Amino acid sequence: MSRLTGPVLVVGAGLLGTSVGLALRAQDIEVLLTDIDEENLRTASGLGAGRPQRSPKGGADHVYDVQLVVVAVPPDHLGTAIAAALTSTTAVVTDVGSVKAGPLAQVRALVPAEALPRYVGGHPMAGSERSGPLAASAALFDGRPWAVTPHAGADAHAVEVVTALVEACGATPLTFTPEQHDEAVARTSHLPHVVAVLVAGALASAPQDHLALSGQGLRDVTRIAAGDPRLWEQILSANTAALASLLRDVRTDLDGVLEALESDSRPVLAEILGRGVAGTAAIPGKHGGPPVAATAVYVAVPDHPGELARLFADVGEIGVNIEDVRIDHDPGRPVGLVELTVATGRAGHLLEALESRGWTAHR
Amino acid sequence: MSRLTGPVLVVGAGLLGTSVGLALRAQDIEVLLTDIDEENLRTASGLGAGRPQRSPKGGADHVYDVQLVVVAVPPDHLGTAIAAALTSTTAVVTDVGSVKAGPLAQVRALVPAEALPRYVGGHPMAGSERSGPLAASAALFDGRPWAVTPHAGADAHAVEVVTALVEACGATPLTFTPEQHDEAVARTSHLPHVVAVLVAGALASAPQDHLALSGQGLRDVTRIAAGDPRLWEQILSANTAALASLLRDVRTDLDGVLEALESDSRPVLAEILGRGVAGTAAIPGKHGGPPVAATAVYVAVPDHPGELARLFADVGEIGVNIEDVRIDHDPGRPVGLVELTVATGRAGHLLEALESRGWTAHR
Repeated sequence: MSRLTGPVLVVGAGLLGTSVGLALRAQDIEVLLTDIDEENLRTASGLGAGRPQRSPKGGADHVYDVQLVVVAVPPDHLGTAIAAALTSTTAVVTDVGSVKAGPLAQVRALVPAEALPRYVGGHPMAGSERSGPLAASAALFDGRPWAVTPHAGADAHAVEVVTALVEACGATPLTFTPEQHDEAVARTSHLPHVVAVLVAGALASAPQDHLALSGQGLRDVTRIAAGDPRLWEQILSANTAALASLLRDVRTDLDGVLEALESDSRPVLAEILGRGVAGTAAIPGKHGGPPVAATAVYVAVPDHPGELARLFADVGEIGVNIEDVRIDHDPGRPVGLVELTVATGRAGHLLEALESRGWTAHR
Repeated sequence: MSRLTGPVLVVGAGLLGTSVGLALRAQDIEVLLTDIDEENLRTASGLGAGRPQRSPKGGADHVYDVQLVVVAVPPDHLGTAIAAALTSTTAVVTDVGSVKAGPLAQVRALVPAEALPRYVGGHPMAGSERSGPLAASAALFDGRPWAVTPHAGADAHAVEVVTALVEACGATPLTFTPEQHDEAVARTSHLPHVVAVLVAGALASAPQDHLALSGQGLRDVTRIAAGDPRLWEQILSANTAALASLLRDVRTDLDGVLEALESDSRPVLAEILGRGVAGTAAIPGKHGGPPVAATAVYVAVPDHPGELARLFADVGEIGVNIEDVRIDHDPGRPVGLVELTVATGRAGHLLEALESRGWTAHR
């Protein structure tokens, strides 16, 4: 098994590149950074993500002497940046782009066949609503899935080095072919993003007073629609084939809903709604395990510092593990409704114990 | 201003009806309960939601001597149940159904014109993934919006009594016409539900290993799709006109996305994505105020009882108010990533203070 010894060259000192640099520096691995933006480079280097590596005297032909290159540039520039890394080094090359098959095809067209085995794509399932090196963190990848996507001709050594990078960043490697990866994220990330955008877009034209009836469900469905449009424009455009196929399926189902509504066909509606319930149950549970039956317990909490601490201190003493937490946004009064999700078998005990401690709670 | 003095007759002892009963009993208002299901009636009454009122000796012609009737039956039966309440009493009549215009039209066709002014519709923005009287709570409506939807001929006294009911339940009354209400919830509730179902439905047919790449965004978009299909079938069918119009708009936008992807038209994609960002910003902020710029701070938290309490105790001492909390579900390791949403101006202080207390945190 090949270890990650460094040096590692990170191309692109944005959120992901800088976070990779910080995670590797925390393990004393030497990191070189490049970015076309001098400001990003200074910032990332100042944060301790690595040593800036400006254009060397040898110009574009310079061969960097590194073990691994991590390409962390926007989707539009992935193919050319990966190809440049393969031709300017003899190192293993990976990237952290959201889409894998398209950039691979570009690389294949740009580099000699003997260079291609050194490239193994990757995609960490991590991000932030913010971007740029100032949003970076050594902990960004902690416990996250990180897809490793070797093409058919990839070198086994290169796969090992990229897997070692994933582990050094604290993430969990999951292997996919580039095509499988793109199909998977079209379904789990790009399709949800597009529909969240369409629902949110329908709000932009709504009478403002109608939105007073907004609930937590609407906030949940639309949250990701706030993501950076310039980045998403590139991501969606890079995964056209897989995404368009899913969008056409959704359009067919949407037509099915419309027809069912207009002809008042309850069985068709019931079938579509039932498929949705089955789909939510198919999402893996916490820690990647099977989905666990969970129940929400709602607790009224005065909305000022200290009250949440008091609630969680009580929950800790009661000894029930919390699977998820959410704070409902209640218009009109300074009381938060905190939703505690716990294993269904523990909900009754939690509810009674909270009430006996004076909390107003319900399921 | 008319006060709520009771007695109040609640028709339908499910989640909402029983919760109304509990909230009113907590204020010593006399509550009578009816339900076609004897088991529900016994349960709700046993919980303290009111006194069971079985079919009286006078049969269907019996006139109940109550101040207010609250109809809390499934959407399919709203019109007939409201009409029955208007003809069997001289009381004010309201309901807690999710859709308002359709049932009103049914009532109009079923009762004498002089009875109609006593009916004023209502719709509390509250619910639960569970249903039935056992899920009920006096606190269910606490701080929630509750739409009050008088028709043009509604009696001012009836509006006052229904508003008094809303306030007695701890909710915030918001006035809409029945048609405005149905348009508003089509956009804020029914459309999001349908698209969440369509995205979740696309997961049901996915290869299981693809779903290992599921992130929090997918969980957020699909969460409400787990709602009871039999209830949602009725809700969607009852709001066909407003919902179908929005679904057709979404289909048009979906076609726009498909065309833009297939012709690689970036400006069209950018316009649609930008509209989504604007839509998320249009959702009212916490407490119904204007949206507040908020930033997420992520903290790694060992996944066992007590650790969340320790985190919130520290957050309480740091003195930063938490707008929202979320626990990310990380596959493969027993560490939770807790997302604390705070006012943007406070995020830097919170991050530094948490790190100085030994937490691994990032933005």
